[in-house]
Amino acid sequence: MNIVRALKCRECGQEYEIQPTHVCEFCFGPLEVVYDYEKLEGFFTRELIESRPQTMWRYKELLPINGEPTVGVQNGFTPLVRAKNLEKALGVSELYIKNDSVCYPTLSFKDRVVSVALSKAVEFGFKTVACASTGNLAGSVAANAAAAGLESYVFIPHDLEQGKVLGAGIFGTKIIGITGEYDDVNRLCSEVAGKYGWAFVNVNVRPFYAEGSKSLGYEMMEQLGWKAPKHVVVPMASGSLCTKVAKSINEFIKLGLVEDNGTAIYGAQATGCSPIAKSVKEGSDLIHPVRAKTIAKSLAIGNPADGYYANRVIRETGGWAEDVSDEEVVAAMRLLAETEGIFAETAGGVTLGCARKMIESGKLPRDESIVLCITGNGLKTQEAVVDAIDKPRIISASLKEFDILAEADGVK
Amino acid sequence: MNIVRALKCRECGQEYEIQPTHVCEFCFGPLEVVYDYEKLEGFFTRELIESRPQTMWRYKELLPINGEPTVGVQNGFTPLVRAKNLEKALGVSELYIKNDSVCYPTLSFKDRVVSVALSKAVEFGFKTVACASTGNLAGSVAANAAAAGLESYVFIPHDLEQGKVLGAGIFGTKIIGITGEYDDVNRLCSEVAGKYGWAFVNVNVRPFYAEGSKSLGYEMMEQLGWKAPKHVVVPMASGSLCTKVAKSINEFIKLGLVEDNGTAIYGAQATGCSPIAKSVKEGSDLIHPVRAKTIAKSLAIGNPADGYYANRVIRETGGWAEDVSDEEVVAAMRLLAETEGIFAETAGGVTLGCARKMIESGKLPRDESIVLCITGNGLKTQEAVVDAIDKPRIISASLKEFDILAEADGVK
Ligand SMILES: Cc1ncc(COP(=O)(O)O)c(C=O)c1O
Ligand SMILES: Cc1ncc(COP(=O)(O)O)c(C=O)c1O
Ligand SMILES: [Zn+2]
Ligand SMILES: [Zn+2]
Repeated sequence: MNIVRALKCRECGQEYEIQPTHVCEFCFGPLEVVYDYEKLEGFFTRELIESRPQTMWRYKELLPINGEPTVGVQNGFTPLVRAKNLEKALGVSELYIKNDSVCYPTLSFKDRVVSVALSKAVEFGFKTVACASTGNLAGSVAANAAAAGLESYVFIPHDLEQGKVLGAGIFGTKIIGITGEYDDVNRLCSEVAGKYGWAFVNVNVRPFYAEGSKSLGYEMMEQLGWKAPKHVVVPMASGSLCTKVAKSINEFIKLGLVEDNGTAIYGAQATGCSPIAKSVKEGSDLIHPVRAKTIAKSLAIGNPADGYYANRVIRETGGWAEDVSDEEVVAAMRLLAETEGIFAETAGGVTLGCARKMIESGKLPRDESIVLCITGNGLKTQEAVVDAIDKPRIISASLKEFDILAEADGVK
Repeated sequence: MNIVRALKCRECGQEYEIQPTHVCEFCFGPLEVVYDYEKLEGFFTRELIESRPQTMWRYKELLPINGEPTVGVQNGFTPLVRAKNLEKALGVSELYIKNDSVCYPTLSFKDRVVSVALSKAVEFGFKTVACASTGNLAGSVAANAAAAGLESYVFIPHDLEQGKVLGAGIFGTKIIGITGEYDDVNRLCSEVAGKYGWAFVNVNVRPFYAEGSKSLGYEMMEQLGWKAPKHVVVPMASGSLCTKVAKSINEFIKLGLVEDNGTAIYGAQATGCSPIAKSVKEGSDLIHPVRAKTIAKSLAIGNPADGYYANRVIRETGGWAEDVSDEEVVAAMRLLAETEGIFAETAGGVTLGCARKMIESGKLPRDESIVLCITGNGLKTQEAVVDAIDKPRIISASLKEFDILAEADGVK
């Protein structure tokens, strides 16, 4: 069943046929996919969904593709973890990690958006796909394009972590480093998209791409036992994921799949690149672009495309936004690893660090359900923590030498 | 239903009660968990298994724990990928990747063995867990112990890859580097286990630990539509996984869950550490220990504990063993990434490299089903490929500069 109605301008409401475009011709507003939800009535039930394979595509009616996906068929469906140890550490009573640090296949939530974007690109007949990326998107486009037999070009800032660069290059993509920030990369990509006619997943195919993020929200609610959490904390770069988690909840409420739980959405950024958090804290809806300077490179978008909408979602749901220093990012990465055995990338440190701060400040209540969206894997950002972690203690293969260490550790 | 009968000596057949021990008191043979399979009759059906959550524990009756697992409850159940692009590249007709490079939570099949070992350690009442590791096991013990609230010590050769060291250290484990090879590490650990009374997952808890690997085989068969493949290629370090894949198939046949398909098991090693492959090729069952020298550090066990049994499984099932040079490992890692979008670690390069060689030599037929066990993630062994992969081409954010690159690429 295809319930996709159209692309619709978020600003003036003008509707467009489904096509690879992302900006309104009249007002330059961003386009969004809209659906005829009533067509799903009586059909799209919990039972139907539960009967399907555990991938992001079990919600395919709410993703903007025609029929069956062709790219990333096995992608998504990551664990939701009840974080008992972290609850104790933070002094809260009901905490969950939505663990996209193990998202299939490239270990970030970007596999969700890329699966939709590339499936759609294939539908549209594109042969070459591309993206402007802060790192994770590059790896996901490269891997999924390789598996799908598509050519790919990925554009990144020149100074990303080795794991991000290699984690894209290994797939045989054409990888271009741009001397400049993400916002420069993005600007160039708009020009390249116009000239070369490729499917840039986050430029001309962006309306479809962005919808993929909703799957994280759907899974979270299903895994909570078909319930919306009271509070969700989301890391923000462009702000898109933040808006789509909100949209996923609204859709499930509209479809009767969960009850309205008054879910509040919270945004997390690194202090060195916090234009959205700043605007929320100031009670403003104006986003002032910044120059990014943070170890959380995946979130380093100084001029966030969906910043305005993320700000609105946060304020309208009664949430809040916070930002954390690079030191707090590293401390939170370690805390998450030591309590829950989850090695998240810097963005995960941002999410947990901000959550912690909001719990301490009272913005996040201690006695209601909270979900933290952990969206990328720490093996791709090893630089951020390698100096903070104790090196192995080196001894020879001698019990005597080990005894000395054990004694120093207070082992009895 | 608990069908675990005893620990049984593989050599003299002596049975022991379930306890944390691994060697026969009479003949020093290794102990193995044995089961009363007939108790499962009429109960352990495909339908029952399919109705359970998609984790390795859906086969819990065949894993040696009492009742419900307490550690790694969400672990396992990785995708089986039909590798159409790789089929073309290799000239075979039915090829699958069992993709444990995304195994939950630490991205290697070691999460399977550790889930069982630590659940059992908790049953036995241990508070501290430990291991001798070539890298992946260390990360898995550290992460799963952290999540379970257990103390942990992990012992590794001093010269492992950064991703392996950090991928354990991040979890707050006590990490000890040994100047020497894995076999030195292992020897020391036997002494430490004896003296400190900890649960060393691959020493005193080894019989339970090793059983966890069977879950990879069970999943593979279920995902093939309840069928055993004709051929399975398995990377070998100690040789344990190889023997347990065979055991999983025999168990499913015995339980009537799959038909006997005459599955042949193939072993893969790096030439720089190939004692098992060598013995198979020589038609011998004697394993001569070697000094390891290969980039496939996770497989670098020169004196493999289960080498004799792996050799026997391979020869008895009509399989074969092969080994590949470090250059072939890197080439295979790239081939897997470029064709299927899967970034495997060096061990994955060993598996695919050996499979390719055995296809070319006719040892693996081109027209029958083959499963490759890809057991670890490439982000942990970046050193192995970083110099082989093209660096990004760097330009400024200028369409003109990009046009020049595009022209050089032959883009129209
Ligand atoms: C790991 C990770 N988390 C979160 C985000 C934020 O995504 P968005 O641009 O949708 O705000 C990104 C973006 O690249 C990311 O890589
Ligand atoms: C990635 C990987 N594959 C395969 C193996 C082989 O395991 P076994 O010792 O069971 O032969 C190991 C062992 O460490 C490993 O790390
Ligand atoms: Zn408009
Ligand atoms: Zn014996």
